[in-house]
Amino acid sequence: MAWQRLKVNQKVLKNKIINIFKKHKLSSEHALVCANAIINAELVGAPTHGLSRLKMYCDRINKKVINPQPKLKIKKISQSISQIDADNSIGFVAADIGIKQAIKNAKKTGIGIVGIKNSGHYGLSGYYAEQAVKKNLLVFCFTNAPPAIAPHGAKKSLFGTNPICFGTPTSSKVPFILDTSVSVINRGKIRVAERTGKKIPEGVALDKFGKPTTNAKKALAGVQLPISGFRGSGLAWMVDILSGVFTGGNHGGKVKDPFDDFSGPQNIGHLFLVMKSNLFVSNYTKRIKENIIRVKRLPKIKGIKEILYPGQSKQRRYKNNLKKEIKITSNIADDLKKLDA
Amino acid sequence: MAWQRLKVNQKVLKNKIINIFKKHKLSSEHALVCANAIINAELVGAPTHGLSRLKMYCDRINKKVINPQPKLKIKKISQSISQIDADNSIGFVAADIGIKQAIKNAKKTGIGIVGIKNSGHYGLSGYYAEQAVKKNLLVFCFTNAPPAIAPHGAKKSLFGTNPICFGTPTSSKVPFILDTSVSVINRGKIRVAERTGKKIPEGVALDKFGKPTTNAKKALAGVQLPISGFRGSGLAWMVDILSGVFTGGNHGGKVKDPFDDFSGPQNIGHLFLVMKSNLFVSNYTKRIKENIIRVKRLPKIKGIKEILYPGQSKQRRYKNNLKKEIKITSNIADDLKKLDA
Repeated sequence: MAWQRLKVNQKVLKNKIINIFKKHKLSSEHALVCANAIINAELVGAPTHGLSRLKMYCDRINKKVINPQPKLKIKKISQSISQIDADNSIGFVAADIGIKQAIKNAKKTGIGIVGIKNSGHYGLSGYYAEQAVKKNLLVFCFTNAPPAIAPHGAKKSLFGTNPICFGTPTSSKVPFILDTSVSVINRGKIRVAERTGKKIPEGVALDKFGKPTTNAKKALAGVQLPISGFRGSGLAWMVDILSGVFTGGNHGGKVKDPFDDFSGPQNIGHLFLVMKSNLFVSNYTKRIKENIIRVKRLPKIKGIKEILYPGQSKQRRYKNNLKKEIKITSNIADDLKKLDA
Repeated sequence: MAWQRLKVNQKVLKNKIINIFKKHKLSSEHALVCANAIINAELVGAPTHGLSRLKMYCDRINKKVINPQPKLKIKKISQSISQIDADNSIGFVAADIGIKQAIKNAKKTGIGIVGIKNSGHYGLSGYYAEQAVKKNLLVFCFTNAPPAIAPHGAKKSLFGTNPICFGTPTSSKVPFILDTSVSVINRGKIRVAERTGKKIPEGVALDKFGKPTTNAKKALAGVQLPISGFRGSGLAWMVDILSGVFTGGNHGGKVKDPFDDFSGPQNIGHLFLVMKSNLFVSNYTKRIKENIIRVKRLPKIKGIKEILYPGQSKQRRYKNNLKKEIKITSNIADDLKKLDA
């Protein structure tokens, strides 16, 4: 039974991931950074960005399109602005260094910007946004991704699902983290539907002939639709420009699919933009608290118990999962066994 | 016939608007800034942000909820960051000064941020974005607006249509300006439908009881729907935080409707964020050109002649209208006559 669910102790799992990355020539430090990001994706309920990608990362290292021992170069452009050449590292490593640099710059000058090139898939944007928010900062994270969405008017995909990610501290421990792709649904979810043989909803994708489809496999071979037609298409284009054209990364459909294309590194670009929350007001925490209260107090649609802000349900899943064993499929258990051999 | 279309010479019209604003105690300089913004909205084909608002601005001045002779205070926070207290000016005036300051800061340090509070409705975000783009800068403009969109899960509106506006230079004279509200359709279009007695499309609004409606009047009394459910709701919330909570402006549903609520100033907040396009790469113009070419060369859906980037069709309308007389309704002609009396 390929889709049986197994339960694995978190610590055991984390050590296994670290071990696997070390076997694939990553330093202990980088292996830990990657393991933390992968475990976090599982805990927040985003398995599409977690263990299901582990084999892909290792395959790319084996085929020399990810550099397991990158020499990242950080160039200081000003006190506020830094550029990172990630030397084809795993995205996790570049993004971890990048967000820390952006936080440092923002702490010093009020605003920090970091542009990263020659990186790879970094997992969840919200994971990095949260690091900035925990330091009481506002943050934007932009990254591009392999072609998945057709620009408005085109029948071939070119933009990635290109998330827009924005975070702000709240007055509570639960940060406001909006981390939304501009496709109607997440590509990872289509991938999971394909692996589990499930159908996808109508209106989210076209097959390769430009016809609507609910077949996940056909959708992956075809195009995903952006939210709200030209609006979503424009937002995806904006993210491609900010994270690719602007930073020096690949762009305009040139980011390779990490699962299917081993002909070279991805050269994904990321852009982190971080600001002190009290740049213009001294009582930001009080203001954001008031803002959230006003929204939560609105009369609700039938069936809705509570109006949640972005990031709240993710945080609940995280808290709920934190002390549990992690459920993995037997496919992934097989991957882990083989990779750790 | 209240909806007969009249043609008016542009220069005559502009002088009339300037005259009207001067009669309402604006300085010649501020009257010119306002007239330019209003004429521009007409030329780009956004009459909902043009002359149809002139009477409203004057009414608000008469009722002392817009200050016609504001003393704007610009506070320098750093070389990159400035804050403006707009002293309840017309939004056009505050935004004009704000974007110029942001451009100045970005030219000096690579990045410019300006937060504005105590402002009012400033017309089209794209109008300000274009000013930065013409100086070869990348730009974000954020502003909030009176309640129009229900947060996801609520049956009462709270967020404004809160546009997300991003601009970048291209290699041509036609800038890339994404200026999209996060409502399914622009509130101004519903307002025009109400005045012209037309129906609005399905799926864009609910009446005040939370039921779907195609009646423009009922939609204005009810709520507009955000694009793509929780995604659009999250984006609207983000814009409210950036332009309201962060800058010191009103937020969380407290921005007054300029047409209906004369109980006090709007205290709208704006945030401008401007960056040099060559921060990380020396050949930005070449890169963005290549990016746009790649998208435009994609195979097109049946019936689509050309894939356009955001701002392109607006620029075409502008160019097309530039040497023509401006068409106005007889309602607006009446407004002009009365206001200029």
